[in-house]
Amino acid sequence: MSTLSRPSGRAPGQMRAVRIERGYTRHAEGSVLVAFGDTRVLCTASVESRVPPFLRGKGEGWVTAEYGMLPRATHTRGDREAARGKQGGRTLEIQRLIGRALRACIDRGALGERTITLDCDVLQADGGTRTAAITGAYVALVDAVRWLQERREIARDPIFGAVAAVSVGVYRGAPVLDLDYAEDSDCDTDMNVVMNDGGGFIELQGTAEGHAFRRDELDALLALAEQGIGELLAAQREALAR
Amino acid sequence: MSTLSRPSGRAPGQMRAVRIERGYTRHAEGSVLVAFGDTRVLCTASVESRVPPFLRGKGEGWVTAEYGMLPRATHTRGDREAARGKQGGRTLEIQRLIGRALRACIDRGALGERTITLDCDVLQADGGTRTAAITGAYVALVDAVRWLQERREIARDPIFGAVAAVSVGVYRGAPVLDLDYAEDSDCDTDMNVVMNDGGGFIELQGTAEGHAFRRDELDALLALAEQGIGELLAAQREALAR
Amino acid sequence: MSTLSRPSGRAPGQMRAVRIERGYTRHAEGSVLVAFGDTRVLCTASVESRVPPFLRGKGEGWVTAEYGMLPRATHTRGDREAARGKQGGRTLEIQRLIGRALRACIDRGALGERTITLDCDVLQADGGTRTAAITGAYVALVDAVRWLQERREIARDPIFGAVAAVSVGVYRGAPVLDLDYAEDSDCDTDMNVVMNDGGGFIELQGTAEGHAFRRDELDALLALAEQGIGELLAAQREALAR
Amino acid sequence: MSTLSRPSGRAPGQMRAVRIERGYTRHAEGSVLVAFGDTRVLCTASVESRVPPFLRGKGEGWVTAEYGMLPRATHTRGDREAARGKQGGRTLEIQRLIGRALRACIDRGALGERTITLDCDVLQADGGTRTAAITGAYVALVDAVRWLQERREIARDPIFGAVAAVSVGVYRGAPVLDLDYAEDSDCDTDMNVVMNDGGGFIELQGTAEGHAFRRDELDALLALAEQGIGELLAAQREALAR
Amino acid sequence: MSTLSRPSGRAPGQMRAVRIERGYTRHAEGSVLVAFGDTRVLCTASVESRVPPFLRGKGEGWVTAEYGMLPRATHTRGDREAARGKQGGRTLEIQRLIGRALRACIDRGALGERTITLDCDVLQADGGTRTAAITGAYVALVDAVRWLQERREIARDPIFGAVAAVSVGVYRGAPVLDLDYAEDSDCDTDMNVVMNDGGGFIELQGTAEGHAFRRDELDALLALAEQGIGELLAAQREALAR
Amino acid sequence: MSTLSRPSGRAPGQMRAVRIERGYTRHAEGSVLVAFGDTRVLCTASVESRVPPFLRGKGEGWVTAEYGMLPRATHTRGDREAARGKQGGRTLEIQRLIGRALRACIDRGALGERTITLDCDVLQADGGTRTAAITGAYVALVDAVRWLQERREIARDPIFGAVAAVSVGVYRGAPVLDLDYAEDSDCDTDMNVVMNDGGGFIELQGTAEGHAFRRDELDALLALAEQGIGELLAAQREALAR
Repeated sequence: MSTLSRPSGRAPGQMRAVRIERGYTRHAEGSVLVAFGDTRVLCTASVESRVPPFLRGKGEGWVTAEYGMLPRATHTRGDREAARGKQGGRTLEIQRLIGRALRACIDRGALGERTITLDCDVLQADGGTRTAAITGAYVALVDAVRWLQERREIARDPIFGAVAAVSVGVYRGAPVLDLDYAEDSDCDTDMNVVMNDGGGFIELQGTAEGHAFRRDELDALLALAEQGIGELLAAQREALAR
Repeated sequence: MSTLSRPSGRAPGQMRAVRIERGYTRHAEGSVLVAFGDTRVLCTASVESRVPPFLRGKGEGWVTAEYGMLPRATHTRGDREAARGKQGGRTLEIQRLIGRALRACIDRGALGERTITLDCDVLQADGGTRTAAITGAYVALVDAVRWLQERREIARDPIFGAVAAVSVGVYRGAPVLDLDYAEDSDCDTDMNVVMNDGGGFIELQGTAEGHAFRRDELDALLALAEQGIGELLAAQREALAR
Repeated sequence: MSTLSRPSGRAPGQMRAVRIERGYTRHAEGSVLVAFGDTRVLCTASVESRVPPFLRGKGEGWVTAEYGMLPRATHTRGDREAARGKQGGRTLEIQRLIGRALRACIDRGALGERTITLDCDVLQADGGTRTAAITGAYVALVDAVRWLQERREIARDPIFGAVAAVSVGVYRGAPVLDLDYAEDSDCDTDMNVVMNDGGGFIELQGTAEGHAFRRDELDALLALAEQGIGELLAAQREALAR
Repeated sequence: MSTLSRPSGRAPGQMRAVRIERGYTRHAEGSVLVAFGDTRVLCTASVESRVPPFLRGKGEGWVTAEYGMLPRATHTRGDREAARGKQGGRTLEIQRLIGRALRACIDRGALGERTITLDCDVLQADGGTRTAAITGAYVALVDAVRWLQERREIARDPIFGAVAAVSVGVYRGAPVLDLDYAEDSDCDTDMNVVMNDGGGFIELQGTAEGHAFRRDELDALLALAEQGIGELLAAQREALAR
Repeated sequence: MSTLSRPSGRAPGQMRAVRIERGYTRHAEGSVLVAFGDTRVLCTASVESRVPPFLRGKGEGWVTAEYGMLPRATHTRGDREAARGKQGGRTLEIQRLIGRALRACIDRGALGERTITLDCDVLQADGGTRTAAITGAYVALVDAVRWLQERREIARDPIFGAVAAVSVGVYRGAPVLDLDYAEDSDCDTDMNVVMNDGGGFIELQGTAEGHAFRRDELDALLALAEQGIGELLAAQREALAR
Repeated sequence: MSTLSRPSGRAPGQMRAVRIERGYTRHAEGSVLVAFGDTRVLCTASVESRVPPFLRGKGEGWVTAEYGMLPRATHTRGDREAARGKQGGRTLEIQRLIGRALRACIDRGALGERTITLDCDVLQADGGTRTAAITGAYVALVDAVRWLQERREIARDPIFGAVAAVSVGVYRGAPVLDLDYAEDSDCDTDMNVVMNDGGGFIELQGTAEGHAFRRDELDALLALAEQGIGELLAAQREALAR
């Protein structure tokens, strides 16, 4: 493990440069450009005063997410999903994950009968788009809630914790943090971890691409993830304090 | 935790009755009805001598899965996806999971330019349909491979390990194994675990539905999963020996 | 005609073994596995207390059907209609036929503002899936109506007759009853006949695949159909008496 | 029955005025406007020198049909199927019927590797659109074949018989020929009959809308159909002789 | 320019023969067959007493259009959009244009909460289908409004001007009026012009297919269009006076 | 007209601040962020060495465009077209326009059998997205062509002119240049003009939203457009010289 050399030259436990830019666009109640290195995702939060049918009249709100990738966010151009006429399985899987992750930090009763939609659109992809999206969408969500509070539409802050996400993986035999595309496309195991600021796990999605991973590898990956998420939570706090 | 009472009366580490019936239908190269209690999934393996475009001419085979749920497999009737005109996000997510899990036990070079499609159709649902599907699909896959070997179409057995899956979760504060629908719809944390017979993890998908789960809860869940998967691997071996 | 030999060895007027198994799955109000030889169709009846828009407020109910075929119910794997994104013409044609046939035996006023949906899913196909589906769906419909009566939701039995269906055809010059796949794919004329227990015709769908059929052939086919339907009506009565 | 009065004042065995106009549009190899009273269908035959994948390299041709209804062909405007994004079940059922009927009069080997597509578009509907379509499409098909023969693309005439279709039904207790919309929407039994000029049946599709029909009613309907089809075959011959 | 010879032999400023036939079909409130030479479009106007959601309760009506082309309206058969499952970009573009053009001559407040849908279906195409459609749809719209007035459903005539459309283009260097297919597929610049009877422009859509057009060419084209539209407005008046 | 006050305070012939930023993302062969005031569009050019079927083997290339709007680019959130399952008519219309405009400045023979796809995705919308898209896409196209030339894949520069686009309109009676959203949603006439650097018109699309526009208004609008396009062509040159 001592000789591991990541394509980027990073140390195993080193994240890429993280940048969180609020107010990236004007119209949305929350608008955040989040960058994990070369991965750049625009996360907007839109507030609407309606809820999906299954929640009507229950006095509760809803938080949901949609995910997209610009056709040339990637090395080779991908199909535009709108032109193909449907969202792919990967897209649906990711947007379901983002929605679940964000719903884990909000009191939907305190939100009232409103829907907040988090649109996460990848402008440039270099691995880790879903974890960047969750991390950035949390900041956009907070901004949207603050907007509601400033207009005195809601009395109590419905957000009860912060949420961030990072990927970890076993790359050429060694556990590493925050995989970029070069690592992601060549790793044995890939795991996405979503945690809150209380140290609890919200989602854990690990996949053995090559060989199955052992329990000790899992433990090492979880330790790296905890560390990375600590850094991301700090970056979120800092961005929100600006 | 001593007072936990599961709706089914099972002990925390007790699986439901598992039944694996080979040759359930006639036409498929492998056809298995798998039951985890009241959950019943028909898994067929179909061999075709063609591969998807991205593999043409590479001398490798492909294993893929499709998942469906009969409209009235559930307590209340769900929409028929064929009539609605698309597969939902949950369906796509599950069939991608099944495909990845089964590809983790097969040497695609030894399979040759063939596709084996595993159709997993839920006849009756009571929680854990995806884990039952993976467990049953493995047996159907083995039968399809044996069919190829009997016809001397492939020389070497491409299957290099067994794969099974089980769900675990935190139900009313206690870790339990193999959640049924009553538990699944009311649990705090739900995790699907796919392992091979070497004790390695192939997939890990944990979701906190209520409160985030702690590291010690995760450890307890993984221990239960390991135990359950041991029983499932034994049931597979026994079915294949019949 | 004396030398006719059907692939199955059956006599010209001999049906395949018919099996009608009630309560095949747990959740549906009616659930029947019907087998005509190797053709096996799962028919469930689901009761919902709503009607389609065109019937709202008229005090009448609705009976409708959906039909599907598991991808590997057939000799070679067919596309999954949900994955292709639409139901084919054959599927739509069959489910429209099943719906019309079942509506012919029920007083929709006595049913009240309820919809009963008959899902007919073919687990294994060997010819005659639509006629097996109608025959089995009738039994599932009766069970669903009994369920409503036991819960005293409806006062009067809305079912005023039994309905069954069988195929007949001209195979190698001779009229035969209840075609299996080997005959169906090689016959000159194929006719599906739906009748009630009063001896009346509900549907008649005859197609000349090879040469056009003459009036005397039609008469012979109708006679065989009447006989076969008599046997099916008896099998339904017997199953419902159990 | 003696007092039956059809809405149109026609006698029970009286067809509507039939008009067959060849060369209605310029571009198609065959183009026929057929009218059964107020029902007007434009049938064009298009010749293309390709066959569907399942026939490639077999030296045989294909004849197929597509059916459409202009949105305001009917009393109240219907959805445009192109705008809704799919053809309905009724449309698919009818176009499959037209295709089968026309394939019953052509030697596909003599046609060679060509496809003739019959587009049947209803400009105005007043009952019997599918039977008018079959009757008119036959004439368009003959014109397209003659076009091929004039250009010496095919040596031998592939058409070996004429095909026509008519509807019959039990209206207020009496068998009647060629139902118009007023009768069709209020009849007990409706049957579409396709026959050839040898007196053979090609398709028979009878449906009991109200009460099931008896054998003697069926016989009366078939007799009316035979008479009507005789008149239609004469009208086709006359149009083709012009 | 003196030596220009149009394929049809027409003079540069000469329109094709224009024919406007009212009452072409029976059911629609307005039904017009319009012909610009060999281009023939059936335009029906359907009145419905409902408005789209965005207008509900505002006391205003709506006028909209749908456009279609029969598959064999053209030289070679085109796909049926209903079968392909979506309307193409060209179709959507044209039907949006027709709708905008017709809404420019009607007071939607005076129409009341009604929708008039103009279905423009091309029976035969020879260039200029969209301009013929607009010109014919105007007449169908007037007929539908008269129908409403005769039934005293609306008090005041909501139509405040006439609308017609024509194409102009630069063909082999010379500006010409009303392009047919031979010219359209071989011209440098193609412009569709919609004007009202006050001499005002409603739509102007010019496209340089070959070389970009100069300002003096534009001026010449607009002069031709004004002249052609004068003739079309006269033809509309004459048809409506019959 | 002297008292006109535009919502933005701009003079009638004053464009918004135009910004053209090359190299906005990394992967595409050309990547340009173009801003017309608050309207921001990301235009990427992707080179692929294949052409659409209708051009295969002809030695010519193809240039095409796709257009999208992020759901919250606008004041209120719009549906995601990928989730709705189809691109709307407005989207298709715009992407067809962009494609035609860019094909007007390139020699497709000199490009060789390659496709350049221009993806124009609106990050923020404030009126004029299609004109900004065309103006920016031209710069991305030039960058992609330079990329091909640097790699010596093409010998001769296929681009033979520059293309830019601007909107003009009649706002409260006065002709104005480069409408923003506040003006666009409240103007009488709206025209999009695409021109090349030779002063020729490539596209002209004018629509009277309120009253029809007169010839003198059209002349005034075209003069404004010519001036604005001059400024845009200068901005393009400047950006490309950097």
